[in-house]
Amino acid sequence: MGIRGGMQDRAHEKSKVAVRRRNDPAGVRGRILDAAFELFQSRGYSATSVHEIAAAARVTGGALHHHFPVKKALGLAVIEDRVGQALEETWLDPVRAAPDPRRAVLEVFDDLARELDDQGSVRGCPVNNLTLELAYSDADYREALRRLFDNWRSVLSKSLGGNEEAVSLTSLIIASYSGAMALAKVEQRGEPLRRCASELARIL
Amino acid sequence: MGIRGGMQDRAHEKSKVAVRRRNDPAGVRGRILDAAFELFQSRGYSATSVHEIAAAARVTGGALHHHFPVKKALGLAVIEDRVGQALEETWLDPVRAAPDPRRAVLEVFDDLARELDDQGSVRGCPVNNLTLELAYSDADYREALRRLFDNWRSVLSKSLGGNEEAVSLTSLIIASYSGAMALAKVEQRGEPLRRCASELARIL
Repeated sequence: MGIRGGMQDRAHEKSKVAVRRRNDPAGVRGRILDAAFELFQSRGYSATSVHEIAAAARVTGGALHHHFPVKKALGLAVIEDRVGQALEETWLDPVRAAPDPRRAVLEVFDDLARELDDQGSVRGCPVNNLTLELAYSDADYREALRRLFDNWRSVLSKSLGGNEEAVSLTSLIIASYSGAMALAKVEQRGEPLRRCASELARIL
Repeated sequence: MGIRGGMQDRAHEKSKVAVRRRNDPAGVRGRILDAAFELFQSRGYSATSVHEIAAAARVTGGALHHHFPVKKALGLAVIEDRVGQALEETWLDPVRAAPDPRRAVLEVFDDLARELDDQGSVRGCPVNNLTLELAYSDADYREALRRLFDNWRSVLSKSLGGNEEAVSLTSLIIASYSGAMALAKVEQRGEPLRRCASELARIL
């Protein structure tokens, strides 16, 4: 799903609080995850070195190594803690809480389109960014990302009625959202999300 | 779009012919492009070094540098020559040639789902793989990939009638295909393409 401006800002605030403390392993870990998440979103996983993540998180290489002995441990923690959280905030919470889940689905598309246009840039959906980069070449990443997609599908299809029609519709919703974010990324605007939502509205 | 087994095999055949010749700059260039395309599909752009591409293409570093002085020149040529060709073969030719383009669209989904299952692995759609990895961080790659999406949209919407409804429908088709390929990649099977096609059939 798309990274919302609000979420990025909140993560940034947490980093600033954390840096004031001393001997705060949880804070250091969180700062490393925030920095890694941001760099993976901006440049991609393979293009980002562990060294650059340590510098962005303002921690030593030793501190980063203490929390994440290898890059994959850090990548998997980013997926579970940060990407999973972004999915919850952008997609799952709004749909779970909605009196009308079908309407809520369309609102996720429209809200995000507006947010991307306000930001003036599109880094794309972190679930899909990491999936397209890593899911073929690495089985551990594939499993971690698959769990996110499974959860996404499970919450959505349950909200839409839990029957066979809901399961099938859920696949189209997640696929069209994922692909619309690719189009939004190449166009650097929210319009593709709006176009897809207006078509989806015909069958939702 | 997805890389079809058939296309991969044809590229491989061409490489074998090319390697038998001497002093064949076009053949060398083609082998480099084939090798780069394959490695980008398997591992991603950033995770692949120019050195590895030269080794896979069985050319010297000097020969590769002669044709592509920087990695970006090679990446852009892969997009234009190889990814663009894959898009033509997988999507544009079948839809252009079809007496019933709506049916042809659904057949692209189904044919590819079957092909991926026969292959037993999914490397994903090369247009989307490179878009999600590069379209935010690099304006040149973004432009090159955008041209492919624009062409994809233009051919499809023209085939579907060229009116406003066709334009809007085309966005949903390309987005749901792109996203279904992400789901196929994380599940390593063609099923997500089939699920999306069966939902799309309701509005096509």
